[in-house]
Formats: sequence, structure tokens, C-alpha cells
Amino acid sequence: MLPQNTIGWGTARSAIRELFEFGNKRRAAIGAENVFDFSIGNPSIPAPACVDETLRELYSTGDSLLLHSYTSSAGNPSLRKKVAEFLNSTSKGQFEAEGVYITCGSAAGLASSMNGLLMPGEEVILIAPYFPEYKVFVEGAGGKIVVAQPDENMMLSAENIAKVITEKTKAVIINSPNNPSGVVFTAEKLAEMADVLRAAEKKYGNNIYIVSDEPYRELCYGDAKFAPCQDAYENTIVCYSFSKCLSLPGERIGYLAVDKRAADYEKVFASVAGAARALGYVCAPSSMQFMAEKCIGATSDIAQYEINRDILCSGLQKIGYEFAKPDGAFYLFVKALEPDAQAFSDKAKEFELLLVPSDTFGVGGYVRLSYCVSREMIEKSMPALKKLYDCYKK
Amino acid sequence: MLPQNTIGWGTARSAIRELFEFGNKRRAAIGAENVFDFSIGNPSIPAPACVDETLRELYSTGDSLLLHSYTSSAGNPSLRKKVAEFLNSTSKGQFEAEGVYITCGSAAGLASSMNGLLMPGEEVILIAPYFPEYKVFVEGAGGKIVVAQPDENMMLSAENIAKVITEKTKAVIINSPNNPSGVVFTAEKLAEMADVLRAAEKKYGNNIYIVSDEPYRELCYGDAKFAPCQDAYENTIVCYSFSKCLSLPGERIGYLAVDKRAADYEKVFASVAGAARALGYVCAPSSMQFMAEKCIGATSDIAQYEINRDILCSGLQKIGYEFAKPDGAFYLFVKALEPDAQAFSDKAKEFELLLVPSDTFGVGGYVRLSYCVSREMIEKSMPALKKLYDCYKK
Repeated sequence: MLPQNTIGWGTARSAIRELFEFGNKRRAAIGAENVFDFSIGNPSIPAPACVDETLRELYSTGDSLLLHSYTSSAGNPSLRKKVAEFLNSTSKGQFEAEGVYITCGSAAGLASSMNGLLMPGEEVILIAPYFPEYKVFVEGAGGKIVVAQPDENMMLSAENIAKVITEKTKAVIINSPNNPSGVVFTAEKLAEMADVLRAAEKKYGNNIYIVSDEPYRELCYGDAKFAPCQDAYENTIVCYSFSKCLSLPGERIGYLAVDKRAADYEKVFASVAGAARALGYVCAPSSMQFMAEKCIGATSDIAQYEINRDILCSGLQKIGYEFAKPDGAFYLFVKALEPDAQAFSDKAKEFELLLVPSDTFGVGGYVRLSYCVSREMIEKSMPALKKLYDCYKK
Repeated sequence: MLPQNTIGWGTARSAIRELFEFGNKRRAAIGAENVFDFSIGNPSIPAPACVDETLRELYSTGDSLLLHSYTSSAGNPSLRKKVAEFLNSTSKGQFEAEGVYITCGSAAGLASSMNGLLMPGEEVILIAPYFPEYKVFVEGAGGKIVVAQPDENMMLSAENIAKVITEKTKAVIINSPNNPSGVVFTAEKLAEMADVLRAAEKKYGNNIYIVSDEPYRELCYGDAKFAPCQDAYENTIVCYSFSKCLSLPGERIGYLAVDKRAADYEKVFASVAGAARALGYVCAPSSMQFMAEKCIGATSDIAQYEINRDILCSGLQKIGYEFAKPDGAFYLFVKALEPDAQAFSDKAKEFELLLVPSDTFGVGGYVRLSYCVSREMIEKSMPALKKLYDCYKK
């Protein structure tokens, strides 16, 4: 007998993976330039120069033994200090090096947080639409997910969160800018939610933590501004990845930081660190820790994503598609033209359009388009998007 | 309320960490050259030239986007294929790319294996002395450790394993060359154990898996030869790290490979992969995957460890210390001169000698000396080791 949950996670049908494989087949058959693949979430803009320059420098003149050595399990002290300083200078939170844990990306921070926070059967609120791995992390840690619906603009709704809080609520995962909707949660909405959480803490005599997954923090466009959760709420754990801002998702480098004003601050940090240990995280990749210390604050040329967004939005609008206004990340959440998002995604394939059905993200009736793609592809895809629209509306 | 087990793992007193901190204080006080620190397990010989050369080359001429991109969660197909070929060419096992999962080091492979194999309350046999993190990985996965004693030479004893097998036994973790003893398990002893495991499988109608943790595989000295578990037993999962052979323990790159003859092969692989997903492992560091593909089979100048071993062994022998013959890894397991290993380690500190007490490894009465240190330090430490001996024997 083997555990059924892990077998399930290892064999689960993945709409994204299936689209990926379909795309590979079509690219081979008709040429990559004729396939309009909006399914991937891999940065399309290279890392800023400092990344490869710093790494080349480290491998040329650095002490090879030191560079490749184990670091402390929580990471190099100097990097932890820089992260705390960075968070303190960009938010009203209070962070110290001792509360920062350098992780193999945000996923490692999330899995460690869930395992460190949750007692068996405790609940974690996800806000739809949500990144599907959250469910796996919560259930892997023995918890249960509870889904709060967003408002009609895919914005965080404190009212809907209040509806699903119970005495078992231990945490809320916030993801802004959001994958898959691209919506950026406002400071006002976060403050409303914080009031709801504080009231529930008082009512049930429990602590509720916000676990804020912020890999898209720097990817905000136009007037939209990222609002840190810790500005509204003390019991906050920030999970960050350098994947998107430095265009290096494969390298697995990020951090987890517990606001020192959080309830049971020291115990929470110890528990999350203990969880990371049990999950097999010895330390985050050492070279990347040295690189991150040099490059913290740098970003790849994010303006390119904003241009992509504008071209795609105006094209879709002109055709007649409806979507939530995407202020950040590199995703657009477009209303499917039939209730069944999977059927709509299948129909789109007939025009070589790869769109991810929203069922994957816990809501029906939408598709996700990633615009971390080449500008040429966006422009070339417009006739296909028009033909798809005409299938339904003509 | 927070989980007590994770808080425990996050706050546990660690003899190794305490020695590390004591060492730092003494180095600051009397100079690093006067502290004889045998407590660390970090490679002391730099990575082979191919490592930094390959990385420099990748960061200079490689496609930066591709280099830093997400890989498949199980790793780059070409690397998985190379690993399978490597294992097939160096053992009698049968491996295929589809059964190889590239991991963030061997720890990630072990944690994923335990989470993918164990049903609640199932038992995993560890062979004393054992690497202490095994206990954390097993308990983190909801399992229970059961300890089998070695024979009087710290060698694997099939008889002692037979004594502790129950109907709940799901796996045996094998670690050869062994940390902390340096003993290399022979093919003969592994075959004896395999017979015991097969008999137990028959008796209880269960599958029992060997999870073979082999980061020291290449570090065998003199006539000693590493014996692969899969040569004796089909139900084998190999967990490997490039940490020791390529001297890059901080970079977190290794693999897990399930022998395709193993019972429920496909389910086991799916379950372990599903566990890796739930633990937050998105992929192993991408640059390191490309590097590993180029450098597989290379090693740092391991002969240096053998010279260290010989100098240390002959010095200790001359003084009068007793120890198991260390045929591999870079550890020596020396009999303490009083029954309480911690007290002996404390006494050693008076001579600026940092020796890890064996209680950490599940047995009493020994200390571990790492000889992945500078030759000069080994030579300079001899008078101190003599003085320590004289405290007890004069």
C-alpha cells in the first residue's frame, strides 16, 4: 500500500501540462511560429545584466569552496539582513534578519509555512481564482482548503472571506498581483480583510496568519501599486521568489519572512524552520544566495510586459472579449464564450490558440492568457482570436 | 496552537551546531590556526575544474532565458537519461530516464521517498550509527524509526535487521560509505540483508524498499569498493547527491532513481514525485542541472581525503585510540575514552579539539572526526589528541 494522496498529486491530470504537450506536437507539425501558446508562465524577458555578470564574476574570482559550501539552513546571515532591511524600507512591517529564512523559491516557503502552521484538519482560506499548487501544499501539510469568492472584478472581498471563516481557520493565502487574474489587491481591500481577520481571532480566541505569496510584487503597471499585507496586518508571513523579477524561475531562490509583530513570532519561525528541515531543505542554492545579495532590488525590463499587456488588452477588447483589468503579473483572465472553460479551451486549439481553462484555478468560465511571450506572437495571434470569437458570436 | 513536532525540529539542540559556535568563539579568541575543528562535514577539496568552467561557459555563451527557466519537475530529460545510463553502467540495476527524478540534493530525495512511501505509523529501519536527519525525514512523513544495531565493526548486520523487522516495516535506509563511521558495506553483507528482506516480504505479504543514500559513493579508499544495493535487491530507490564528489553541497543538486524491477515501480515513482510536489520542490536548480549533465562522472581530487585518512588513522593508532576501519566517506568513528560521549567531547574542548559526540548518531560511546580538513590541521592536532588521551590513560 502506498499513500493515495501522493500518488494522486503525482499522476493528476494537469490542463497546463496537457496544453504544453499539445503545443509541442503542433509546433513540430506546423512550425513554432504558427502556434499561439498563451499557456506558459515562464518569464520571457532575460535576467537583468547583474545576474549573469555576478555569477560569472563569482565563478571566476570567488573562492570555489566557499561559493559552493553549505550555508546555514536559514541562509547566509548577510543576505537575511539585506532582506529584512529591504522589507522594512518598502513596507510598514517590522522584520529582522532572525525572522528571515532563505528558501528554494516561494513554493518552498509556502510548503514550509503550511507544515509549520497547520495542526491536522485546520483550514486555510484561498481566494478564487487561485494558483492550483496552494491546494497541494495545504493538503500535503494535513490541512483543508476553504475557498472565498472574489468580487465581480476578481478583487479580494472581505465580506466573502468573513463568510467562510470558522474556528478552524489558521491562515489565508494572499497572492497579489494575482496568478491567474493579474488583479492587484488594493491597500483598502487588504485593510478591510485585516479587520475581518482580527474580529475572527477575537471571536474564536485563535491566531490567524496571512501567508502572502508575492513573486509578482514588482510586476505592477500604470497607476497600480503593490500593497504589502503587513501594512494592514501584523500576523503576516511573506513568501517571495526572485523568479519573476530576476527572470530565473528555474534557479529556486527566494525567502520567507515572519513579521516580528506576529503572534508567537519566535515559535512560528522555529516551527516553519523545523518544517523546512523535515521537508528536506538543507539550504537554498548557495551561489544563488550570493547572487541575490548583489542583485536585490534589481529587475529585468518589466516595462516590456506592460507593453505586451496593453497590446493584448486592446486587441481583445476590440474583438469583444471581456476580462478583469490586469494591473500586474503577466496574466489576463478572459471570460470564456461558453460556460464550460475546458470546452472553450478545446475549441481554441482548433485555431492553434493555447489558453488555460480556469477550472484549474478553482473557478469556472474563464481562460488564462499569459503575456510573457514574444510581441510578435501576440500580434500574429489576433486573427485567430477573432476567428475563435466569431465561432460563438457570429 | 502550532505543531509540536515542527517546533521541536526547529529548536532542537544540535551538538554539531553547538560545536560550530564554540569553534567560532575560540577561533576569534586564539586564532583559527589553534583550533582543531573535526566537527564539519563540508568538502575541503575544491570542485573539479569542469564545474566552474562549465558554469562560466553557461553564463557567458548560454541562452540566459533557457538556462534559468523552469525545467520539468522531474528534471531535464537529457540529464535524467544520462543518470539512468550511468547507473546501468555501474550496477546490475535496471534504470530508465522515466524512473529518475532530479532533486535538490539527496535530502530532498530522502524526504520525498519517505513521504511517497509511508502510510501513517509504518516503520523505517535505520542502521546505527546513522545520519540524524533520517529520523526527522521519517517522522516528518508520519513514519516511525526502528534502529538495527551494526556488528562490532560497525558493519551492516543482516541478523540484527531480522530482529527488528515487523509487519509494519516499509523501508530500510542504507548509507554506505557511512556517515558517521566511514564503513563501506560489502556486497556480501548487502546480499545477506536482501535475503532477510525477501523472507520478511513473503512472511508479511508486504513490499519492503531499500532507500540507499549514496552521497559518498565515490569516496572509497584502498581496496574498498562501493557495492550498489540494487545488485542485491530489486526494490531499491537510489538517492544521490553531487555534493561530495563535485564538492558543491550548497548547490543542492542530486537525484532519486527507482529501479524499474521494483514492486509497483510506476506507482512508487508517481507517489514519490507527488510527494516532491507537495513538499514544494518545483524543480532542481536549473543551471546546476545543465552543469551536472556536463560533469557527471567527474570527481574532485578524492585521493587527498585518502591521504588525510591515513595520516589521521596512523596518528590516532600510535597514541592508542580505537576506531572502526574507515574505508570511505571522510569520517572516522573513534571510541570515546569514557562511556559518556558528550562528556568526552566536552573534555576534548579543553584542548581545542572539536569532536562530535556519537549520541547524535544513535549510539553512545564514540566521537566522529571529519577529515575533510586541512592536512596542516591534522598534523598540528596530534599533540592535543595525545594530551586528551593522557587525561584518561595516564
